[in-house]
Amino acid sequence: MRATLIYGAGDVRVENVPDPEIKLPTDAVVRVLRSCVCGSDLWPYGSKPHAEHGERIGHEFLGVVEDTGSEVSNLQRGDVVVAPFVWADNTCDFCREGLQTSCRHGGLWAAEGNDGGQGEAVRVPQADGTLVKLGVGEDSALLPSLLTLSDVFPTGYHCAVKGGVNARTTVTVIGDGAVGLSAVLSAKRLGAERVILMGRHKDRTDLGRDFGATDIVAERGEEGIERIRELTGGDGTHVVLECVGLAQAMDTALSVVRDGGTVSRVGAPQYEQVNLGFPSFMGNVTLTGGVAPARAYIEDLLPDILDGTIEPGRVFDRTVGLDEVPAGYQAMADRTALKVLIKP
Amino acid sequence: MRATLIYGAGDVRVENVPDPEIKLPTDAVVRVLRSCVCGSDLWPYGSKPHAEHGERIGHEFLGVVEDTGSEVSNLQRGDVVVAPFVWADNTCDFCREGLQTSCRHGGLWAAEGNDGGQGEAVRVPQADGTLVKLGVGEDSALLPSLLTLSDVFPTGYHCAVKGGVNARTTVTVIGDGAVGLSAVLSAKRLGAERVILMGRHKDRTDLGRDFGATDIVAERGEEGIERIRELTGGDGTHVVLECVGLAQAMDTALSVVRDGGTVSRVGAPQYEQVNLGFPSFMGNVTLTGGVAPARAYIEDLLPDILDGTIEPGRVFDRTVGLDEVPAGYQAMADRTALKVLIKP
Repeated sequence: MRATLIYGAGDVRVENVPDPEIKLPTDAVVRVLRSCVCGSDLWPYGSKPHAEHGERIGHEFLGVVEDTGSEVSNLQRGDVVVAPFVWADNTCDFCREGLQTSCRHGGLWAAEGNDGGQGEAVRVPQADGTLVKLGVGEDSALLPSLLTLSDVFPTGYHCAVKGGVNARTTVTVIGDGAVGLSAVLSAKRLGAERVILMGRHKDRTDLGRDFGATDIVAERGEEGIERIRELTGGDGTHVVLECVGLAQAMDTALSVVRDGGTVSRVGAPQYEQVNLGFPSFMGNVTLTGGVAPARAYIEDLLPDILDGTIEPGRVFDRTVGLDEVPAGYQAMADRTALKVLIKP
Repeated sequence: MRATLIYGAGDVRVENVPDPEIKLPTDAVVRVLRSCVCGSDLWPYGSKPHAEHGERIGHEFLGVVEDTGSEVSNLQRGDVVVAPFVWADNTCDFCREGLQTSCRHGGLWAAEGNDGGQGEAVRVPQADGTLVKLGVGEDSALLPSLLTLSDVFPTGYHCAVKGGVNARTTVTVIGDGAVGLSAVLSAKRLGAERVILMGRHKDRTDLGRDFGATDIVAERGEEGIERIRELTGGDGTHVVLECVGLAQAMDTALSVVRDGGTVSRVGAPQYEQVNLGFPSFMGNVTLTGGVAPARAYIEDLLPDILDGTIEPGRVFDRTVGLDEVPAGYQAMADRTALKVLIKP
């Protein structure tokens, strides 16, 4: 089959790789209907040292079950399923607590010999625990929104849930990428009435308004902080959703959170340390969040997509075939595309 | 009257200062029955540059109301009261949320012309909001435990509450100082069945056992981390209560917290940054805590002290008069005293 490999910064290729097959009785093989490029894929695309052998990449996909191992009992050939971006048994103590990203028998796509999502098919370990049946056909118009359940939408949702967003909290969302916009949609779903979106790409912040943002702050750094302070009577907001992952974004988050409030982060941190010294201590600021256990949220979010209440798939603004994946990466890196859908 | 001033590192003096008097109609004047030295007083005692003029110091006291301003309605001359270590109106939005440390009309003892607690009397701003009547006489044997309500006990309690301690959480407490021991007592009160205390002073960890610690880890750094991992099947504990304030203690906390768990800190941070990069992100670790709004907890904790259920005053292992306050500081700095009670 064909799949995407990354050889280094700026060098993504689609090549022939071995067809996936059942290796363990808990495996399934899924033929990919839709995949996509994640903002976090852009970190290696921007900086990975060049290597002689490419590495598989991609961790978001939905598809059709083609084969199942002997111990798989919840899935059948033909089921249309979505995979969260971490596979998990969904039965261990961490999974039962809703932290499938720490599953005792889980792992990451495209790592340690496992298939990546940006290809024609995927061997899925712990298939019963990992895959969620969607109850739609292969040609459903909802596939883009359903695909967001693999990562980007639950990531924004995790950010809002961990931040404690509710009807009584004001919210700042930092970042107008697909995760930030998903966080806006999530904050709205959790009842927030005031959602300030920090972003400077008008097409993106316009979608943010559609998703529930009540205010847009295009300024960054000190100016952006000042603007949020103006909008909140000097106090900042109860919750700040940090959806970028850069040190400056985290510093901004800590500067616009209200005393006693929470900064929740889901942007994969491109920093080692966080400025949480005396001022944050005196303000009783909480820092929470982390890699999102998407699996924990899928059943909760699915009905709202199926009945059209929410359309998180609107973050996709370009669709490519497998051959065009390298161009899709470049478009996202150039910010000419917000998020690229892949139709193998 | 006489009060304690600090001139610089190692230089604390007891001198004559102006008698406190009502300045604002919301003030009261309190004659101090008991005060004490805080672990946080040892930071300036250890490092403050020497100055020509001394500054008032001390923020923990209980005493007798001697005079009240015209707008004070809840207090009468003769009431025995405790003051939390931050004064507050107890009516603003932050106070109503239980964050009196961020009160819009609050402030700190011994700062900006306000009296400190380590003296014969104190002018108390926002007296109605700040002071809590204890319902005991001036000679009550409970005064030491009641005095802990001003800071050290609610600080440990805040740490445990913010950490989310309950009957289902395992807990590590870092630090066998008076705050750490108060955190142990608090974790026990909140139902924790497993409380691991990290500390290496046997007399202190023995008191920790009395307060509810189930395990003592005397090792520090990597060895201490390894020991906690051994005790918890490799996972760490759900909650870590960081009661020291040094960078190493925070690093230890982040190394012994279970995935999805919480590090709660109340040790005044002697660091600017916290190592919260990729590993903490992947582990979904929350960092919370901060300066404790003692006022928010006093009414909750008071009955348990009055009926003898808990004796947080056991952290005091030396009592001095006002003249001996400098020796009291030195004893705490030398660690020959855990916490020094002052009887003016």
